[in-house]
Amino acid sequence: MATYRVRFLPLDREVEVLAGALIGDAAQQAGVALNMPCGGQGRCGRCAVIVQEGKVRRRTTQRLSPADVEAGYALACQTVVEGDVVVFVPPQEKIERRLKEGKRAARVVLPFPYDLHDQPLRKYSVTLEPPSLQDQTDDWSRLQRELARRYDLRTPQASLPVLRKLGRALREGEWTVTVVVELDAWDRPDGPPRLIDVLAGEHLESLWAAAIDIGTTTNTVWLVDLISGEVMAQKADYNGQIARGEDVISRIIYASKGNGLEELQGLVMQTLNRLLKRAARERHISTDEIYKVTVAGNSTMIHLFAGIPPESIRLMPFITAVNQPPPFPARLVGLGINPEATVDCLPGIASYVGADITSGVVSSDMCGTGELTLFVDIGTNGEMVLGDCTWLIACACSAGPAFEGAGVVHGMRATAGAIEEVWVNGQTYEATYRVIGDEKPRGICGSGLISLLAEMFVTGVMDKSGNIHLDLPTERVRKGEHGAEYVVAMACETATGEDIVITDVDIDNLMRAKAAIYAGFSVLARSVGLDLSDVEQVRIGGAFGQYINVEKAVQIGMLPDIPYDRFHFLGNTSVRGAYVALLSREMRQRVTEVAKMMTYLELSADNTFFDEFNAALFLPHTDMGKFPSVAALLEGR
Amino acid sequence: MATYRVRFLPLDREVEVLAGALIGDAAQQAGVALNMPCGGQGRCGRCAVIVQEGKVRRRTTQRLSPADVEAGYALACQTVVEGDVVVFVPPQEKIERRLKEGKRAARVVLPFPYDLHDQPLRKYSVTLEPPSLQDQTDDWSRLQRELARRYDLRTPQASLPVLRKLGRALREGEWTVTVVVELDAWDRPDGPPRLIDVLAGEHLESLWAAAIDIGTTTNTVWLVDLISGEVMAQKADYNGQIARGEDVISRIIYASKGNGLEELQGLVMQTLNRLLKRAARERHISTDEIYKVTVAGNSTMIHLFAGIPPESIRLMPFITAVNQPPPFPARLVGLGINPEATVDCLPGIASYVGADITSGVVSSDMCGTGELTLFVDIGTNGEMVLGDCTWLIACACSAGPAFEGAGVVHGMRATAGAIEEVWVNGQTYEATYRVIGDEKPRGICGSGLISLLAEMFVTGVMDKSGNIHLDLPTERVRKGEHGAEYVVAMACETATGEDIVITDVDIDNLMRAKAAIYAGFSVLARSVGLDLSDVEQVRIGGAFGQYINVEKAVQIGMLPDIPYDRFHFLGNTSVRGAYVALLSREMRQRVTEVAKMMTYLELSADNTFFDEFNAALFLPHTDMGKFPSVAALLEGR
Repeated sequence: MATYRVRFLPLDREVEVLAGALIGDAAQQAGVALNMPCGGQGRCGRCAVIVQEGKVRRRTTQRLSPADVEAGYALACQTVVEGDVVVFVPPQEKIERRLKEGKRAARVVLPFPYDLHDQPLRKYSVTLEPPSLQDQTDDWSRLQRELARRYDLRTPQASLPVLRKLGRALREGEWTVTVVVELDAWDRPDGPPRLIDVLAGEHLESLWAAAIDIGTTTNTVWLVDLISGEVMAQKADYNGQIARGEDVISRIIYASKGNGLEELQGLVMQTLNRLLKRAARERHISTDEIYKVTVAGNSTMIHLFAGIPPESIRLMPFITAVNQPPPFPARLVGLGINPEATVDCLPGIASYVGADITSGVVSSDMCGTGELTLFVDIGTNGEMVLGDCTWLIACACSAGPAFEGAGVVHGMRATAGAIEEVWVNGQTYEATYRVIGDEKPRGICGSGLISLLAEMFVTGVMDKSGNIHLDLPTERVRKGEHGAEYVVAMACETATGEDIVITDVDIDNLMRAKAAIYAGFSVLARSVGLDLSDVEQVRIGGAFGQYINVEKAVQIGMLPDIPYDRFHFLGNTSVRGAYVALLSREMRQRVTEVAKMMTYLELSADNTFFDEFNAALFLPHTDMGKFPSVAALLEGR
Repeated sequence: MATYRVRFLPLDREVEVLAGALIGDAAQQAGVALNMPCGGQGRCGRCAVIVQEGKVRRRTTQRLSPADVEAGYALACQTVVEGDVVVFVPPQEKIERRLKEGKRAARVVLPFPYDLHDQPLRKYSVTLEPPSLQDQTDDWSRLQRELARRYDLRTPQASLPVLRKLGRALREGEWTVTVVVELDAWDRPDGPPRLIDVLAGEHLESLWAAAIDIGTTTNTVWLVDLISGEVMAQKADYNGQIARGEDVISRIIYASKGNGLEELQGLVMQTLNRLLKRAARERHISTDEIYKVTVAGNSTMIHLFAGIPPESIRLMPFITAVNQPPPFPARLVGLGINPEATVDCLPGIASYVGADITSGVVSSDMCGTGELTLFVDIGTNGEMVLGDCTWLIACACSAGPAFEGAGVVHGMRATAGAIEEVWVNGQTYEATYRVIGDEKPRGICGSGLISLLAEMFVTGVMDKSGNIHLDLPTERVRKGEHGAEYVVAMACETATGEDIVITDVDIDNLMRAKAAIYAGFSVLARSVGLDLSDVEQVRIGGAFGQYINVEKAVQIGMLPDIPYDRFHFLGNTSVRGAYVALLSREMRQRVTEVAKMMTYLELSADNTFFDEFNAALFLPHTDMGKFPSVAALLEGR
């Protein structure tokens, strides 16, 4: 039998192997360390090397894009040596980086299809004729007169707090002042203009506003320069309400007791005000210079932000007090910007399809394409919208907080110390993992849980019903306090000094969550007579979407089994929607139109949901025909 | 010489007197006590009797109306016995009562020439279809839908605080609610309607509002039932700001220091809130049921009420920040009514011609007559408006607070213990007086001062320059600490145990005040080429006007010397104007029109004012031709 020489760079070690050997075998023979956490099954992609010279045969190109193959990438565990070869072993970090991008949805940077100068906030500078004994016109009429003459600004309205500043500003500025005016708002398209501030002297150099997203978990603030249209600072932090409940339901319950509502409103305001202050400090401005905000968030978050009791959201038949709050001045809620600044809360359409979704739909530009699009925002609730430029249908499924780490023994949020990806060795059933922040692990976050479930299923650690096989020849499966469990990280490896495990109960919770989400997709598609395979693009919004490994999510049957290149991750679509609505009247109007156009499907009123949910309570699904790529993978196993 | 018998009833005493004797002589002879505080000069009217039978000759009918003479009234000191007569001596109280009305301006009760149903506040009750899983419309859209359907109420606006109440009201009322709506306001005549409140269940039985007058000294609240249009309670009290300055200038100075503005605003709000609470209690309602107020007051008071810095009002060239504040919700100023209630401040036209005058002009109906009318409101400032239905010209003269009792050693406000009328005996120079509340005197109020000045002048206690004659044969004139003085009440008669006096300095202050007022009238008339004698009616507003004895005020040259029957007192025209503006869109519009139509004459910019002022610094005036009735009186002396 022929032998070939395999030379490994950059270590420059060479070995001889028999024809038909794998690069992985050669590496082991040469003492070149390659990671193979999946047990050499070609699933994890961590043993990728670059074949610089010579002939090889790749058994599989899983994990490798055509461009990768073009560049010589091959998986050591799946690549047969068919001649003398030179193999370059990239630094493990580089592989990790590539994999991290791996089968996640591609990040899409969307264009801004609107006219920046379309937004209605203005600054005008005017110099007035000073009053005299002959011209006794009062300050406000004098200012109005000049604004009409110079800028054709008719019958502007000023609130009392602005009028209180007027006299001093005029005299301090020696009759030159700058006014901040909102020409119109969505609820009064034909004006009249509203005076927001009056400043002594001329101050036309800047005009600030902010886009805000109030997530149940994370709050985000984008500070926007309305003159250039650019985002000048981005700040995010946990919603201070978390201490009073992790999900919207517990917050609603908290809000309904004593002065819980005021407390929750105060807590989110504290968080937002801190973020606004930090953003303002970064640009060396005062928060008083922020004259407008647009706010997106789910309906409960918007209610709590505005101080509107959210009780009815959680009680049958799940009704919001108001889907589209009117614009109001910041002082009414204690938001730490200019007290007269306009607060424009974007419209939601239902208790569980809020402004985060309408703004997400607008910012994802799904109505701008003719393609059948599925927009998904998965958090505690999974919200999903199906449609194209002519129709939109939305629903929300109460996935529960399992994928946010709650209800799972070692679950945690995606912060430092969280296991975010797991590989299970298909032969030894050993686990390998990646931890956020490269620390010792403290728990497992949502993307880690999805990854773990997929690996356990694909390697046969558990069956399609999610039952762990206790009879496997490994100490990692065992009977624990909460029934069967699988040890992801041994006590000696963890930050806590305890095993990190996943239990049958955890798996059950996660199965219910993923089933709810997939059932939502199914009911949406079925309600309009379509199949999920018809979906031409999936646009994923929300912070969680950023970390989901699409492949693994498909393997557990959480996302529909359609080609990976149809999945796109858009980042925080909610704050982005708030941002575009801030910059453009047209886009603001589009949010309203989207809210009006969107049909809401209340799943608890839909009698097919329960069937779809039950059918999805398997890995990946009772109907494997819906998951051809997973079926193929399992067959190959 | 013939003798006649004079019989006095009800004592039934009879005496014989010579022909030509006076009834007063006969009474003395008969031992019948008659009051003659003026010394038998026919000025005070206190010796009035009723001649029941017999012939007499009245030397004068001063103090007596034609109806009085018809009824037999005669002044004992001025009536010659020309036959046997029977004279009835009425109880002194009855005379006092008659005199109290005396030569004051007649009280006029004005008609209400407007349609009550014209005001824009409404209550609507609606019952909504409850939501369901099939109809997921949010609460606010559901309410809007029904309001549009049942009442054709389109695109109503609701503020955040109202929306905060909506969900609970709907559920508590089992989907029946009552909404309080303002259909439009003067600054948005074509709507949209504004939701002020939402109440669980049906509550159409009442609709409350209030008219408010904020005087520098006194605040007045009228609680109004908008369904009947009636005033249901009237409350008044001193403006709590008095403790921080008696006049507007000292208040403006106080407001400009530290947080003086907030303090003054808080003080007037305390007073108003107390009055509102008392009025509400009287009608057994909650102040939360008061859904609108109209507010009149001088420009400084309106600025302080609204929290607008008033500084520029007192600084050349005397400019207000705003003559017409926009309507605003009560919560913005802390007014103790429904926090979302509309506060509508009526428009002023200048720093010293405020909303008290525009509302006074409208409520006095001076633009409803074709007669040349002089509208006067005398307080710390004298504001005056001349015109008819086609034109109006206004000015304000800074009279100072002398007639309100400040700047006068024994001056005081018109409360219990204040001397409100004085008579000086023309022969003995003794003083007699009437005290408010029939108590021992503590000081002299404005009307008392006018009366005192007139008496001292007419009896020759002082000359036309206001100098007290120290050489008179009475101990009542003397040299005091502050120069020459006249003792009005002896220490033994007073509540304080000290003499109550008027000094040269006091008189000087009062002369300057009355001269400023008269000069104002003169400049107004002259500016339009008219003479004060052309004035066909004088309408006096303000609380002070109620107590001025027109005759005495003419005698000192404060009011123009025209027939008494042309003077009419209207009471508090400011609060009355606020009241009519509350009841009627048309009248509210008229206040705006009056403000627009009224020409303001700034006296400090008028070079004739100083001449007119100097000419008026005499009693009654340098040009006696302008005061024919006073000239006649002095000639008769």
